[in-house]
Amino acid sequence: MAAKKNALYAQSGGVTSVINASACGVIETARAHKDKMGKVYAGRNGIIGALTEDLIDTGRESASAIALLRSTPSGAFGSCRYKLKSVDANRREYERLIEVFKAHDIGYFFYNGGGDSADTCYKVSQLSESMGYPIQAIHVPKTVDNDLPVTDCCPGFGSVAKYVAVSALEASFDVRSMARTSTKVFVLEVMGRHAGWIAAAGGLIEDEGIPVVVLFPEIPFDERKFTDRVEALVKEHGYCTVIVSEGCHHPDGTFLAEQGSKDAFGHAQLGGAAPVVAGIVKRALGHKFHWAVADYLQRAARHIASQTDVKQAYEVGAAAVKLALGGHNAVMPTIERLSDKPYRYRIGMAALSEVANVEKFMPRGFITADGFGITEACKRYLRPLIQGEDFPRFRNGMPVYATLKNLAVPRKLPAFELR
Amino acid sequence: MAAKKNALYAQSGGVTSVINASACGVIETARAHKDKMGKVYAGRNGIIGALTEDLIDTGRESASAIALLRSTPSGAFGSCRYKLKSVDANRREYERLIEVFKAHDIGYFFYNGGGDSADTCYKVSQLSESMGYPIQAIHVPKTVDNDLPVTDCCPGFGSVAKYVAVSALEASFDVRSMARTSTKVFVLEVMGRHAGWIAAAGGLIEDEGIPVVVLFPEIPFDERKFTDRVEALVKEHGYCTVIVSEGCHHPDGTFLAEQGSKDAFGHAQLGGAAPVVAGIVKRALGHKFHWAVADYLQRAARHIASQTDVKQAYEVGAAAVKLALGGHNAVMPTIERLSDKPYRYRIGMAALSEVANVEKFMPRGFITADGFGITEACKRYLRPLIQGEDFPRFRNGMPVYATLKNLAVPRKLPAFELR
Repeated sequence: MAAKKNALYAQSGGVTSVINASACGVIETARAHKDKMGKVYAGRNGIIGALTEDLIDTGRESASAIALLRSTPSGAFGSCRYKLKSVDANRREYERLIEVFKAHDIGYFFYNGGGDSADTCYKVSQLSESMGYPIQAIHVPKTVDNDLPVTDCCPGFGSVAKYVAVSALEASFDVRSMARTSTKVFVLEVMGRHAGWIAAAGGLIEDEGIPVVVLFPEIPFDERKFTDRVEALVKEHGYCTVIVSEGCHHPDGTFLAEQGSKDAFGHAQLGGAAPVVAGIVKRALGHKFHWAVADYLQRAARHIASQTDVKQAYEVGAAAVKLALGGHNAVMPTIERLSDKPYRYRIGMAALSEVANVEKFMPRGFITADGFGITEACKRYLRPLIQGEDFPRFRNGMPVYATLKNLAVPRKLPAFELR
Repeated sequence: MAAKKNALYAQSGGVTSVINASACGVIETARAHKDKMGKVYAGRNGIIGALTEDLIDTGRESASAIALLRSTPSGAFGSCRYKLKSVDANRREYERLIEVFKAHDIGYFFYNGGGDSADTCYKVSQLSESMGYPIQAIHVPKTVDNDLPVTDCCPGFGSVAKYVAVSALEASFDVRSMARTSTKVFVLEVMGRHAGWIAAAGGLIEDEGIPVVVLFPEIPFDERKFTDRVEALVKEHGYCTVIVSEGCHHPDGTFLAEQGSKDAFGHAQLGGAAPVVAGIVKRALGHKFHWAVADYLQRAARHIASQTDVKQAYEVGAAAVKLALGGHNAVMPTIERLSDKPYRYRIGMAALSEVANVEKFMPRGFITADGFGITEACKRYLRPLIQGEDFPRFRNGMPVYATLKNLAVPRKLPAFELR
């Protein structure tokens, strides 16, 4: 193996407000080790770029452009939702990846994503060995869903948690001041199809004196219990805030969001969980309500990112390069919590065999007995993750975010059709 | 008239992220003129508190608590949606107000709100004179809708404009990085039932290279023209962002949001305009979409307030007190723009007779000929209003917002029933 292999970095799945901070960590650290690591290529639109040999030469970007990635939300090289099938089902794609790696003298594969990409990363590493072209495949953790195992938290989560907690607090102050004659119940829908980590962050506003009900995907929705709880809080405080996870569902498994509602033309209505919950409150209790669906705003909100999260996102990117240079393969840098308060952590390492295809749910002990709030243990877990601010630079009132040149690396292979 | 009359301050209508900055300006300026102005009372929940003699003694709040109002969103004393009827229709309420003023030796009335409260303020001033208990009634402008006349802009608008522009930019970056395989059209619904000022702010992201379509309440919705425009942008850029005002409506006047949609149980569905627009895009073009409804988040988002807006909100509060002490009555401090770039303005004054019941719409020249964007003239108007940041203080990852003691002033009058 040549002394100085190139690297391929790819972003995978839904982007976050800090995934580019990880990219920044990878590229800056590789540049700091130019003697040992060659060029850093990026897959345009993630793994699709790797498969179609549509590679970006990050070496063509200035140091200041790369530095700006640290404070730029979204995926600067493009990401995609494209899950490689099992090796048996689609050996062709894995072999193509190896061919592209070979053609561009790539010895390091940094795959920045969630559970699916950890699995792909693991398979690439296994297959490359059996194909006689060894690749050091390092997974860089990223997911707002916070559902990767082993690592204490996932870069991307802390910032969405902070966005949700801050936004819910602000909107609750609004409702509190209007509740005498106007809105009494405010419903905020947040992401988290399977795990309630993001919704849990909304529960932090209880510490600011806000009456709040959290609806988790982990707890089947009980309409009567829910409206009773809302009514009790409105009676006591005059208003209440509801945080509903998009993954909240009925006991039979159907999501609240899929009420089978139709518009005037009989088309399926593309609703969210928030309007459904607001409608339930209105019908059962008669209270005036408002609802919001944060959707992409929450995972893109770099302007209110958590400093802890940005720092950790950068560090796992940097650690990935160091692990690769240290000879590691099929691993993922992790965040190991050492103490809650003061918050201390260190960057650790997990074998991808332990990470791939394992989903981490909220421990039941993080949800209150009644299912509508978070426990002190959960708050102890969450609080450090939203610590600190890391405001982007602003110019003329708008944040300054990087748009890269993203120049293509000349192709060397025949075209490849995605199926 | 005694040398040192007390003052009553009341917040009216939907609150904003900077209305408390105006309260701060009123109270701090009154405190700085203790020799000429007595106590500052606040109506609990706005004019309802004034009518029911439920007054708050702001003198019981510390200087630091009042200072913190400058960076606290929402209405710290409570606001309400309660419009006083015409004097003829409900003379009883106006007379009650004067009685409360008399009982508490109130000579100054500072009413902080939009068009309705300007009207009420004007009537109070007129009636008090005819009743032989003169009140100096000063209106302090506030509305996210930016629809008050005479003043160049309204405190509250600049911050919601900044929130919308920043959030739309961030979400657009997200969509841009995912569009290859995932979401191609992102729809963000913003406030503005009658005027498109807030939606217009979303148009500012065009300057950041984002393909954007704005749907204004001023332009009747043309479905075919709209989907053609979206398709052209998606073809050119691979994605597009749509900003839709909640007030966007069909040529027959029905709002997009009221599609007459029903849920599975036949209940009217409480939808927004964003899901309707997203559905139209999906059916006509087949593109994957996401949508968000910002709702209260936008007007409560003090964490991303415009520094210009916060400053002006404070200044109109301070100016109101100075105008009162200068002997003025039935007036409103205004913001007079002197130049766009560099942005210069001064605080002016308008007679309430010119403000009451006049609504300011977007000039047609601020909307592009095709009705889907904003012109350079509009951008020149908007840009200064989102300038600068004024981040709140944070503690443990959360913004520090004021919750006042709001101690009641002892009642002196018989109870009063609101009708």
